[in-house]
Amino acid sequence: MARTYNFSAGPAVLPEAVLAEAAQEMLDYQGSGMSVMEMSHRSGMFEGIVAAAEADLRALLSIPENYRVLFLQGGASQQFAMIPMNLMKSKKAAYIVSGEWSKKACEEGARFGEAVVVASSADRTFSYVPDCSDLSIPADADYLHFCENNTIYGTRFSRLPEPGGRPLVADMSSCFLSAPHAVEKYGLMYGGAQKNIGPAGVTIVIIREDLITSDCLPGTPTMLKYKTHADAASLYNTPPAYGIYICGKVFRWIMGMGGLSAMQAHNEKKAAILYDYLDESALFSGSVQEADRSLMNVCFRSTSPEVDARFIKEAKAAGLDNLKGYRTVGGMRASIYNAMPIAGVERLVEFMRDFEKGVPCTTTTA
Amino acid sequence: MARTYNFSAGPAVLPEAVLAEAAQEMLDYQGSGMSVMEMSHRSGMFEGIVAAAEADLRALLSIPENYRVLFLQGGASQQFAMIPMNLMKSKKAAYIVSGEWSKKACEEGARFGEAVVVASSADRTFSYVPDCSDLSIPADADYLHFCENNTIYGTRFSRLPEPGGRPLVADMSSCFLSAPHAVEKYGLMYGGAQKNIGPAGVTIVIIREDLITSDCLPGTPTMLKYKTHADAASLYNTPPAYGIYICGKVFRWIMGMGGLSAMQAHNEKKAAILYDYLDESALFSGSVQEADRSLMNVCFRSTSPEVDARFIKEAKAAGLDNLKGYRTVGGMRASIYNAMPIAGVERLVEFMRDFEKGVPCTTTTA
Repeated sequence: MARTYNFSAGPAVLPEAVLAEAAQEMLDYQGSGMSVMEMSHRSGMFEGIVAAAEADLRALLSIPENYRVLFLQGGASQQFAMIPMNLMKSKKAAYIVSGEWSKKACEEGARFGEAVVVASSADRTFSYVPDCSDLSIPADADYLHFCENNTIYGTRFSRLPEPGGRPLVADMSSCFLSAPHAVEKYGLMYGGAQKNIGPAGVTIVIIREDLITSDCLPGTPTMLKYKTHADAASLYNTPPAYGIYICGKVFRWIMGMGGLSAMQAHNEKKAAILYDYLDESALFSGSVQEADRSLMNVCFRSTSPEVDARFIKEAKAAGLDNLKGYRTVGGMRASIYNAMPIAGVERLVEFMRDFEKGVPCTTTTA
Repeated sequence: MARTYNFSAGPAVLPEAVLAEAAQEMLDYQGSGMSVMEMSHRSGMFEGIVAAAEADLRALLSIPENYRVLFLQGGASQQFAMIPMNLMKSKKAAYIVSGEWSKKACEEGARFGEAVVVASSADRTFSYVPDCSDLSIPADADYLHFCENNTIYGTRFSRLPEPGGRPLVADMSSCFLSAPHAVEKYGLMYGGAQKNIGPAGVTIVIIREDLITSDCLPGTPTMLKYKTHADAASLYNTPPAYGIYICGKVFRWIMGMGGLSAMQAHNEKKAAILYDYLDESALFSGSVQEADRSLMNVCFRSTSPEVDARFIKEAKAAGLDNLKGYRTVGGMRASIYNAMPIAGVERLVEFMRDFEKGVPCTTTTA
């Protein structure tokens, strides 16, 4: 069995050790005689799995006591509605639009009240992060929403935007646990697990307790109230149990790797290998403003769509899979989440160098 | 490794062959070099997995062409809101209340309009199915909702209620695929996968096309519109991919067992073994009206809560797990879904007989 280097933007590569453990426990989890997939979510054994996952996540992120951790469903897309339904008490909120997903979050927010765009990088196709040091946020805005890492275009906020005393709400889907996060600076952080943490179908929400209220917008379904899930410790109804179990294993794996500071160093090292090569290459170039480059999603192009297509095809044949850029963007994207080993990035750069040698140099012949 | 006989009401036992296959494919699905958990949901390989799962489900149930199959998240509890948000155009719907879950569905429905209870078995703690042959349904009700199998109390509708021309909406969570279903008689059927079909985190909705409209109640989130998911063939956002893959394997397993008629015979045989013994036992007795007995969830009691507790404990030690009744109900419940082998039920009855021999006969000494 040959494992490929999988550069998918999500669902994405998981630690091989986690998958091997899951395979081994599939028919009999720790002598229970059953799979975690078959286990009552009200059983002591499963409650232990959820409790351990939460405790490990709390330890990894140093989550303050006045924050709750919720394991939900529906992906970030469902959060785009849950956030305004729960938090938009005065029917107004501020949004930073720095990519497709934050744009979608803003559009969904506008279905529930006024979604004020306080910064945007739409003018240059989201190839940079807008300046958010001095935002004009309406006085009655209930929160400031942003997306910390732009999966599609490959940018990231290296400094948090300044919410001016309002809760900062962050879509962390594609950078969750890629580095330490100062949880106390956020009111709510959320993300789909399927990029850096686990399988699709688990959405993690970390929310400051005072933002959990029963006073939601009229017509908010019971299942879309944070309070429903917080009061029941994520077991209001049957949770995505197997996914939570895998997330828990990934948390333990990160701990074994040395925690989030070590993870950050690991990710910075991988990104540097790839960006350094992009900066010296005559064939390939990075797509975004240098200061805003994502550590997770590295977007780049060659000199033409035809060469891009040939590159993607040949890379796949060489065991470097899912390098195609987002369907509406084109070019290439290498997503190098936590579980991507350094060897995978080194192999990619080696392949890119070899590929470049085989392509006539368009810069001198043009 | 000893597999237990797992009588959990859900999440519940899965076919051992399905789990063994999943374990074997965990690190490398069909030569892809990756787990299904790591696979982009936009990849051809994963689209193939979803398409095959849907095609197999359609074949199993003979789903008419004018019905759509949706793989969603959030469990039946989220459907309790999605259904009125999408279907309650005239702000009124009829509900049959025959158990805790249909009661919850009705209560959630009442958050969006008038939820008229047209039949109920609450008067005798849901120990029977109310007569639904001649219901007084308001002329302007948008649908009739019922729950076909009552997981908690162990009853089932053996005849469909008569909706009088309105769409019949059914929570099928605990009887989905336990027998053939006449899909054309329903407007919408739905259920969490975690009882009879697969792991928790997948919700299956089968809906007649004309009920999928963009005309939802005001404030319906994009993610809670059936149209959003129908238009995108369940891939609007990242679906619960691994869960769908397991469901697909279960569909294939059911086909291998001979399809839904064979499954029904298998389930009737198992239920008969258990109910026949309950009818002859002096110690144990079934909890519900005989005509309404569920084939999936067999609820019973001994002569006292103390004996119940001892039975549950000793059964667990003997490899018969999760026989405790629902937390608010007490007594015992043996859930004997599709994947429970006949040998499991035979072993349970054998154990009950032995247990009964060891208990002083209270009926003669009392």
